[in-house]
Amino acid sequence: MSDRTPFQPYPVEHVHRLIEPGPVVLVSTAVEGRANLMTNGFNMPVVHGGLIALVLGPWDHSFDALRRTGECVIAVPGAELMETVVDIGNVSGAEVDKWARFALTPVPAAEVGAPLVGECFANLECRVADRRLVDDYGLWLVEPVRAWIDEERRGAGEFHHRGDGTFSTNGATLDLRHRMTRWSHLTA
Amino acid sequence: MSDRTPFQPYPVEHVHRLIEPGPVVLVSTAVEGRANLMTNGFNMPVVHGGLIALVLGPWDHSFDALRRTGECVIAVPGAELMETVVDIGNVSGAEVDKWARFALTPVPAAEVGAPLVGECFANLECRVADRRLVDDYGLWLVEPVRAWIDEERRGAGEFHHRGDGTFSTNGATLDLRHRMTRWSHLTA
Repeated sequence: MSDRTPFQPYPVEHVHRLIEPGPVVLVSTAVEGRANLMTNGFNMPVVHGGLIALVLGPWDHSFDALRRTGECVIAVPGAELMETVVDIGNVSGAEVDKWARFALTPVPAAEVGAPLVGECFANLECRVADRRLVDDYGLWLVEPVRAWIDEERRGAGEFHHRGDGTFSTNGATLDLRHRMTRWSHLTA
Repeated sequence: MSDRTPFQPYPVEHVHRLIEPGPVVLVSTAVEGRANLMTNGFNMPVVHGGLIALVLGPWDHSFDALRRTGECVIAVPGAELMETVVDIGNVSGAEVDKWARFALTPVPAAEVGAPLVGECFANLECRVADRRLVDDYGLWLVEPVRAWIDEERRGAGEFHHRGDGTFSTNGATLDLRHRMTRWSHLTA
């Protein structure tokens, strides 16, 4: 990582904390020197501090890059990027260079060829771990190998697609850690 | 469905609208006349209006019922049930009857043996569709066959687990349907 980037390392054992809330994410890929970017709302943690599931199919231009490289970056945009993120999801990387079009900054990753997204508050460098459900559903399991956060940029945090072109921001956060008696190891 | 229940049919082709925002859900199962209930935060849509992925492993008491019956109900609780839903996730159905303990109402489903949760604003009757990743990750694909909604109870809608025992409610909803030029079929 360049000293000029705002990102600090984020503990990989806590990556589910970035995905479990249900964010809209950007998925960054790169193949043959060409980086692409897409918007994704179908994602979830599979293992605490580990595997993430992601639906990304042949209908997405990024599918070929993910299939060929086995690498991607999952970037979590804050609510202030909502309109840009929706627009990214409504053009194809086959037609435009989305990084240039949307003035986003590709930041070199530490372990994968795909770039981090400088404007997102969190970035997870991932390697494909299981392709068994890719052919049937476009369902990938990816393993986060490095994670980065920019707490300054986190702001109001992620936002959520309601599945119909409407999007929710976060309201109040309630602390119920004292009730997590069976899962107290997750709250530390 | 009994005429006395508050639920109206919800179009199965729109079920992703209930899951894509990233809700904490309850999963209801029943085997040998005994219903159980668990809390789940690892879920996502896989197909618009179709398959849902759910992580539910042998560490969950409900695992055996889901494995044996191949059926469950995914119920979406509103934010007013947050403390109850967290408490449901922190006791085991091996030890207590959660329906009785938490005063929840099992409502007979139309197509599956597991009951709907009367207090939740949405209920999806599901059948297991793909078990290939169950042994390795507890990752199930389930097909919603019927869906029900209680708009009166919907209120502020679902809430989100931040992965650490803190939970977010929804803030503002922004309508960006006019920007969904490539995905306009989802916005109708």
